[in-house]
Amino acid sequence: MTTYSFLDDYSEGCHPEILDALQVSNLVQQTSYGNDDYTAEARRLIAEACGRPGMPVFLVASGTLANLIISAATLRPHEAIVSAASGHVALRETGAIEATGHKIISVPSDDGRITPAAVDDAVAGNAQAPHMAKPRLVYVSNATEFGTVYSRSELRALREACDRHDLLLMVDGARLGVALVSERSGGATLSDIASLADIFWIGGTKTGTLFGEAIVIPNAELAVDFEFHLKQRGALLAKGRALGVQFEALFSNDLFAQSAAVANGHAAALSDGITAAGFELAADTESNQVFAVLPNSVIESLQKSFAFYVWEPRPNDASVVRLVTSWATESTAVERMISTLAELA
Amino acid sequence: MTTYSFLDDYSEGCHPEILDALQVSNLVQQTSYGNDDYTAEARRLIAEACGRPGMPVFLVASGTLANLIISAATLRPHEAIVSAASGHVALRETGAIEATGHKIISVPSDDGRITPAAVDDAVAGNAQAPHMAKPRLVYVSNATEFGTVYSRSELRALREACDRHDLLLMVDGARLGVALVSERSGGATLSDIASLADIFWIGGTKTGTLFGEAIVIPNAELAVDFEFHLKQRGALLAKGRALGVQFEALFSNDLFAQSAAVANGHAAALSDGITAAGFELAADTESNQVFAVLPNSVIESLQKSFAFYVWEPRPNDASVVRLVTSWATESTAVERMISTLAELA
Amino acid sequence: MTTYSFLDDYSEGCHPEILDALQVSNLVQQTSYGNDDYTAEARRLIAEACGRPGMPVFLVASGTLANLIISAATLRPHEAIVSAASGHVALRETGAIEATGHKIISVPSDDGRITPAAVDDAVAGNAQAPHMAKPRLVYVSNATEFGTVYSRSELRALREACDRHDLLLMVDGARLGVALVSERSGGATLSDIASLADIFWIGGTKTGTLFGEAIVIPNAELAVDFEFHLKQRGALLAKGRALGVQFEALFSNDLFAQSAAVANGHAAALSDGITAAGFELAADTESNQVFAVLPNSVIESLQKSFAFYVWEPRPNDASVVRLVTSWATESTAVERMISTLAELA
Amino acid sequence: MTTYSFLDDYSEGCHPEILDALQVSNLVQQTSYGNDDYTAEARRLIAEACGRPGMPVFLVASGTLANLIISAATLRPHEAIVSAASGHVALRETGAIEATGHKIISVPSDDGRITPAAVDDAVAGNAQAPHMAKPRLVYVSNATEFGTVYSRSELRALREACDRHDLLLMVDGARLGVALVSERSGGATLSDIASLADIFWIGGTKTGTLFGEAIVIPNAELAVDFEFHLKQRGALLAKGRALGVQFEALFSNDLFAQSAAVANGHAAALSDGITAAGFELAADTESNQVFAVLPNSVIESLQKSFAFYVWEPRPNDASVVRLVTSWATESTAVERMISTLAELA
Repeated sequence: MTTYSFLDDYSEGCHPEILDALQVSNLVQQTSYGNDDYTAEARRLIAEACGRPGMPVFLVASGTLANLIISAATLRPHEAIVSAASGHVALRETGAIEATGHKIISVPSDDGRITPAAVDDAVAGNAQAPHMAKPRLVYVSNATEFGTVYSRSELRALREACDRHDLLLMVDGARLGVALVSERSGGATLSDIASLADIFWIGGTKTGTLFGEAIVIPNAELAVDFEFHLKQRGALLAKGRALGVQFEALFSNDLFAQSAAVANGHAAALSDGITAAGFELAADTESNQVFAVLPNSVIESLQKSFAFYVWEPRPNDASVVRLVTSWATESTAVERMISTLAELA
Repeated sequence: MTTYSFLDDYSEGCHPEILDALQVSNLVQQTSYGNDDYTAEARRLIAEACGRPGMPVFLVASGTLANLIISAATLRPHEAIVSAASGHVALRETGAIEATGHKIISVPSDDGRITPAAVDDAVAGNAQAPHMAKPRLVYVSNATEFGTVYSRSELRALREACDRHDLLLMVDGARLGVALVSERSGGATLSDIASLADIFWIGGTKTGTLFGEAIVIPNAELAVDFEFHLKQRGALLAKGRALGVQFEALFSNDLFAQSAAVANGHAAALSDGITAAGFELAADTESNQVFAVLPNSVIESLQKSFAFYVWEPRPNDASVVRLVTSWATESTAVERMISTLAELA
Repeated sequence: MTTYSFLDDYSEGCHPEILDALQVSNLVQQTSYGNDDYTAEARRLIAEACGRPGMPVFLVASGTLANLIISAATLRPHEAIVSAASGHVALRETGAIEATGHKIISVPSDDGRITPAAVDDAVAGNAQAPHMAKPRLVYVSNATEFGTVYSRSELRALREACDRHDLLLMVDGARLGVALVSERSGGATLSDIASLADIFWIGGTKTGTLFGEAIVIPNAELAVDFEFHLKQRGALLAKGRALGVQFEALFSNDLFAQSAAVANGHAAALSDGITAAGFELAADTESNQVFAVLPNSVIESLQKSFAFYVWEPRPNDASVVRLVTSWATESTAVERMISTLAELA
Repeated sequence: MTTYSFLDDYSEGCHPEILDALQVSNLVQQTSYGNDDYTAEARRLIAEACGRPGMPVFLVASGTLANLIISAATLRPHEAIVSAASGHVALRETGAIEATGHKIISVPSDDGRITPAAVDDAVAGNAQAPHMAKPRLVYVSNATEFGTVYSRSELRALREACDRHDLLLMVDGARLGVALVSERSGGATLSDIASLADIFWIGGTKTGTLFGEAIVIPNAELAVDFEFHLKQRGALLAKGRALGVQFEALFSNDLFAQSAAVANGHAAALSDGITAAGFELAADTESNQVFAVLPNSVIESLQKSFAFYVWEPRPNDASVVRLVTSWATESTAVERMISTLAELA
């Protein structure tokens, strides 16, 4: 790979501080299956960061595991998930939720966000008991698959919609870090998420860990027997320490928020550079994903030095491209991209 | 933890050579979801080690994931798995197989091994179509949950039993390393396993990785669309490199076999020390698990310095204890254990 | 119930000829679980009616059982069903398909029919392997949930679309009788369905039986071990004769086609009466469902003597109503409805 | 079939009184999906017969449907069923329970009955949370698959065992009729079952209906949203009246108890005839199944006129045979069997 990649936010390994923590702890003997000291400390730090000491936290290897375990553990077989059609569980997890036996009711969304009105509609359109699966959990990804971010007031309105219909609210936080440090969030914090959601997960993979996501359960009823589901779905690692060490490091020294802020900073710089060069953004940059409209000739030139997704065609021989940044993005690469764009303009 | 632990073979992190590989590769940009260079090389090395270049290999995060993915990917809903009642899938995976919809037909076993006769019986006892789930796959763990090891000829006889009844043969190789380097194996190799089994997995976690197991599929039909199942069950890591790097290291420089040999060596030393001190083994030591009969007073004294499982009571105020060793076991700890036993004798 | 019901086509018991057959056979001893003489004869008659002597036929108690058994028996876990969003499996079976682990990819449809272009789009939009469930089976209900009917050429075009993408074609024939005798079908026969579909089922409940549907499997590969799935899903009745007797009667003396023709005849008469009275149909009447636009005042008056669904509001204080007819509809009730409408006009 | 069959208790259709009820009600228009007048009355009669007016009752088409719906509706994915190894769900339902995702923990039983001690053992042997599926429901078939019957005090002891371990008690009553009228039951009544079990079902098929079983739910919590599960599993018949009419008849005029008493009476007569002829019973006859030890030569002669299962070989050229009776058994056939035996003795 001779080009520099802006393809995604998981092209590198883990944050050096996390690797150091793995190194330091490596040969210390520990109890297995998540009963180690590192995991205990990671759980403590995460619950504290959410403003809820003692709240249940579980570490799992992947986001799809987090999503399918939440589905399996919290729903009865006739209960369905309401999700934006573009939601990761609806579109890009190979039917993982359905493989746990549950229906997903997809609702349309332009920008990846789901609205209270869409929730109302989903409930109204699936009300014919017992002939329709019963809506029970609203799935929200924040940031969304398009890099858009929910504001605190939007999340509150979703909570109210859920309360109206006796629904659980779940947040897929694969990119929760970049969402919370985004200006678009209106100052939303982990404590806000813990107050509004019944269950959510905090993405490690895209914010600096080698792998691993943290499921957090503010609604205590949903935590009953939760660990059985981890084991049953293959998420309980013999060396649970591998997750514990990483999350302890991620939630020490403000690393989680800092990593997310670095990612958003690079995206903002790229956005500024794009408009400064005279090109347009296809959408506001709310987190670490930048969507720009570029002439196809410019795209071809850029591709000699950079890798990125060409998203969709636009009129006048142009296309939308997507650039993704992360804690690992090199500032010099961002600068090179910006200067190349200025030259090509 | 002030005592030294012989509780299991996953109390430490990963082999230093594997950690080095993670370090060296950490910030190199790579393609995601297992399409990275390290995973490609790991797959190549594993297929080569099995004497079958090009054979499909898939890396997953945990043994339970390996088992449940194999169940989901290879069986139709009415097909059942035949396992020893002590088999990991039957007893200690929280119904993970059943959660994929499949029945496990348990057959009795004294030592963890399943016999061809037991397979014949299971088929005969579940033959009333269509009222009984149809036996379709024989599950073998090697080494077994009791540390016992199949000889090459025992595996061949199981293969013949499977052929008699049109059954698939699967090997759970969580501890395949220590099985193959065991004298009890009669010289069985990875190539033998690949010749005899339809599908099997090679345990990384207990042989030196931080996490991760390698599913190997000699029966090409079973590999069709296999990767979909990885994704659906949450086993396809965004940073698949985390598995690739580790398995590339594990299958370089003979590390896999060497790690296993070290584990068995420690177990042999402990066994010798136990009998030299005048105590009895409860069973022959075939791999890295030692079962010894010790007076309860001796056990209590040992527990001041060592952690281990007290397995079951025996007459005359004695008990069976289990000691497990690994690549990470410290030779000095083994020596201390032996000398302590000699003193207590 | 003092009003006469046009609510649906399952408000009565079974056709008198079927009841007679139950009576005559009642105390004759028979072998259980579908191995009785009546079931054998029913299977023979159905296969013959489809122009394929010997083709596998299985009788089950309900349409949802038929649909979920077909899903479970023919698909691997990562494979998905493509259905119109209004399809019975997608909207009105409480997630029965998802409960077997499979995703439904819903495609938009105005009139309940799915088009080849919609199939092409569904395949194109779910092609990102292995991150998306793999489209594998196209679900068609004929007649549809809106009473619309596929023409023979439309079915052929769907078969071609399936062939383009290596998809199975399944027909939910809950109302296959009224579809085949409809003019809109362009002369399609059971033999055509058997030639075009890989698997389909013929509805008994809505064409004269007390309960029961017949699954027919032209694609022999899909029939392997099929009976296991019947048993596993609770569809194998101890007194399978209850289904056999009914289907033997339904496929004797042309009763199936005659019952369907009676239903369509009543619907045509109602449609004619509605337009003769000066009201409009909301859609062409293609089978046994009539959709009419009536002033709300007329609807209120009608409801004193008749039961039917008020489907959706229309401008100018009017609504669409749905009237459903069947083999059991009384001609005098149809005449009364028509004359009442004429009076109210 | 020129021989008279004692193979099972479902070789005929339905009780003439039930067929009459189907006839009388046949063309009366009714509301669909179990909301008909007959079903309402059947539910009322059953709840009343159980001494619990208003208790939830649901009618389904088959016993396997009843068992798998109870499993799906009452258990979370990590929860397991404890059953005798000979239990219908464990051995003869093609993995129907596992297909809903749940493990069955089989415990040994000589005579089909499960003991409190076996329940205690199952709980103790599966206590290692979260590595083992959690025992949650004890499955009891009464009468058992061997025709044995639980006494009231045995059921009370099982209830206590369940209470000790926070387990649900479920009774599969496919043959509950013959169990309750058995002397072995110690006077147990439907009210007793409703007091002791959390959920149970009353078999119609083997006590006089053409098909259909009644699920009864004394534990109100388990009834929440129950109907969704009926629909999801294909058990909600469009013409639910077909079940309602039959159960209304079965629970009118004491037909349920009388039918069961007739069956047991025939079995008692056969048992007496067998011993009077000088042969031995293999086990006490507790309900409508007779197990006799007969010389193989006698068996061969009997088979010219009668059909029955040869169960297992015995020493001295003899075998155990099984004879099953029902409400439909002809007294003259019983007499012929007895006189033939007397001749052959």
